[in-house]
Amino acid sequence: MAEALRVGIAGLGTVGASVVRVITEKAAELTRQCGRELVVTGVAARDRSRDRGIDLGGATWFDDPVGLARSADIDVFVELIGGDEGPAFACVKAALEAGRHVVTANKALLAKHGVALAEIAEKKGVLLNYEAAVAGGIPVIKTMREAMAGNSVSRVFGILNGTCNYILTRMEAEGLTFEACLKDAQRLGYAEADPTFDIEGNDTAHKLSILTSLAFGTKIAADDIYMEGISNISQADIRAAGELGYRIKLLGVAQKTESGIEQRVHPTMVPTASVIAQVHGVTNAVAIETDILGELLLSGPGAGGNATASAVVGDIADIAKSRPGFQHGPVFGRPAKELRPYKKAQMRSHEGGYFIRLTVHDRVGVFAAVAKRMADNDISLESIVQHAAGPEAEVQKTVILVTHETTEAAVRKAVEGITKDGHLTDKAQVIRIERAG
Amino acid sequence: MAEALRVGIAGLGTVGASVVRVITEKAAELTRQCGRELVVTGVAARDRSRDRGIDLGGATWFDDPVGLARSADIDVFVELIGGDEGPAFACVKAALEAGRHVVTANKALLAKHGVALAEIAEKKGVLLNYEAAVAGGIPVIKTMREAMAGNSVSRVFGILNGTCNYILTRMEAEGLTFEACLKDAQRLGYAEADPTFDIEGNDTAHKLSILTSLAFGTKIAADDIYMEGISNISQADIRAAGELGYRIKLLGVAQKTESGIEQRVHPTMVPTASVIAQVHGVTNAVAIETDILGELLLSGPGAGGNATASAVVGDIADIAKSRPGFQHGPVFGRPAKELRPYKKAQMRSHEGGYFIRLTVHDRVGVFAAVAKRMADNDISLESIVQHAAGPEAEVQKTVILVTHETTEAAVRKAVEGITKDGHLTDKAQVIRIERAG
Repeated sequence: MAEALRVGIAGLGTVGASVVRVITEKAAELTRQCGRELVVTGVAARDRSRDRGIDLGGATWFDDPVGLARSADIDVFVELIGGDEGPAFACVKAALEAGRHVVTANKALLAKHGVALAEIAEKKGVLLNYEAAVAGGIPVIKTMREAMAGNSVSRVFGILNGTCNYILTRMEAEGLTFEACLKDAQRLGYAEADPTFDIEGNDTAHKLSILTSLAFGTKIAADDIYMEGISNISQADIRAAGELGYRIKLLGVAQKTESGIEQRVHPTMVPTASVIAQVHGVTNAVAIETDILGELLLSGPGAGGNATASAVVGDIADIAKSRPGFQHGPVFGRPAKELRPYKKAQMRSHEGGYFIRLTVHDRVGVFAAVAKRMADNDISLESIVQHAAGPEAEVQKTVILVTHETTEAAVRKAVEGITKDGHLTDKAQVIRIERAG
Repeated sequence: MAEALRVGIAGLGTVGASVVRVITEKAAELTRQCGRELVVTGVAARDRSRDRGIDLGGATWFDDPVGLARSADIDVFVELIGGDEGPAFACVKAALEAGRHVVTANKALLAKHGVALAEIAEKKGVLLNYEAAVAGGIPVIKTMREAMAGNSVSRVFGILNGTCNYILTRMEAEGLTFEACLKDAQRLGYAEADPTFDIEGNDTAHKLSILTSLAFGTKIAADDIYMEGISNISQADIRAAGELGYRIKLLGVAQKTESGIEQRVHPTMVPTASVIAQVHGVTNAVAIETDILGELLLSGPGAGGNATASAVVGDIADIAKSRPGFQHGPVFGRPAKELRPYKKAQMRSHEGGYFIRLTVHDRVGVFAAVAKRMADNDISLESIVQHAAGPEAEVQKTVILVTHETTEAAVRKAVEGITKDGHLTDKAQVIRIERAG
């Protein structure tokens, strides 16, 4: 049997501890699968005294993760520290430069430095594996990077943030407000004390930027993503969506268009009968559409120590099965130096159906005025429904429009017009509708 | 750049022609991904004169696939002939023995000879890849064999036959009979002239036997599968399922139980709100449940020239990325020689909920008699509903029972009892209910 694969792990939080536990408890099976033993020979974490309930065996303790990264006693460096700069960046870079394979779960790091790190890995002939960085335990990186060789992707989209999906699921199932669901998510540990990063879409955007690069062979462009979070989704939206046969999900969508690549993160209406609409709670899902394979959907746990550890261990096992001298496939599907520049599509030219919810004064002529603004902007309507809402004394009317395929620019112009007409008592709510099988 | 990977393809039907087309049309991108060119250097098929609309370039034509398999001018042998014996078996065996990597889409061959072929591949240090053999374009082999390293699987189940799912989908959507849908499936090319193999579950069983081996590290045991097809599913079943919040799917299920491994193929009720219930038409889906990752679901096109070719090309690309001297992971997850003997669980001890539809004489006391038989066998009922059906003159009553978790043995005994009581005007219909997220 080949020599053991020596693993160094930086970061011993929930995921790190799970990885150590899996490697220890499943040692026999992993050895059988990989043809060699996996041994944790080094670890780095801040608090040496904390009891993590894991057996670190004879692993050497490093206070400095960069020291571990450069250690001659490891073959693979596993980065589970987090953050897009600082120690995470320093140690991953150091490990690659020292010729170590790297496994990371760090989407923020890859979104910012992924291409540069891939260049180092490819120059050094080592692997940079990052299955856990997108959609937790779902093997979407492996699928896009390996299984889809020869396919040209036209669109990739998914539910990439468990916190948002948990909130939206509970809002729909229990009729609760966004705020109440967020508070529960925080109590249960699904959301951070400062939840901005999750609920405003940044986390989804980071993950999406990585999928975009794999899908279209372009440089990662995480800053060029149109982003709208879920904090302004109301019960009125969720109920109206349900009545119209839709469910609201926060999706990350990357799509090839004539003007370039569209990357967008926003609340989206998907048909209630679609597969992705049944993805509830903290579960994630990714759909990929290609010319040869067609449409593929993967769903599973997007977060949590064990699910993330599963992806990390899978990445380590892939490295264990490789041997010195093996020529690895490129980090982002095509060699980092040959990744194309990212050309951003104009969001205003985005084509699709739209859901528009207007809260209007209860007076004659509103309906007609709204319909006229739509017609003036060449927007064809699938339906227009009027509801009365609120207590009798202050009746407000809600007008809900569903448009046929149109452009973002036309919708924005129409809504501006309606707003100028003075009929609205509140800001118009606009939610994109996404085709989904 | 490394030397080109020389590919020999045996079988130039729909899939074979698609594979040649993808390799030719996507040459530049495949070269970029693999770090070397893929070139079709040899082909074998029966009819040399047929116009397949593909460019075979300078490929050498072999009338005998075994000749191609042994040719010194290929690195990879792609078997797309089909059949579990004859030329397919002969040429795959010959290719492996000659030290060629093999890619095959042949589930029947693997179900019968998979373990023996894996032993040869592992002895010779070559790859035997078979992503296309199960669930067409869905990367379920790669997921189970590579991404799930370290996971212990408890259950794997799926919609593995597009023909059956197409028929069940149309029966439900359009209220048509099984026979009418089958005829349409044949007209559209989704079903063979002799559809037995698809509709009675054999095709699903072959695919399931491969997944079972990957899931539990056991020898393939395709002959030890409990099998029930969909030909006796009626509109009455589909309607009753719908009313109870279920949809009927033909599932292949492999599950670890205390007495051994359960492998079963049968029509199954899954909750209408589950993800797998939204998998319609010829689409396939596989759900995998493990201790670490949790529950993963993959869905996508399960058949068709292009989807299958996508999986075949992915397998070839994986080989292209490997290099001489590379130690490959085992064919079925663990080395073929270490696959455990398959220990079959007793089907009668299968635990789960059951749907039972009884057509009974319209007379007093039937309800009570049925309920008593259930109670006598310790079967607890979730619901019991009585329907009148048929034209007035010959009113028959339908009694529909949904049981809580019980055993197959208890249900069979209860139904035998009811049948003996003489209340039934037709054979009892029993359909298992499967938990599905």
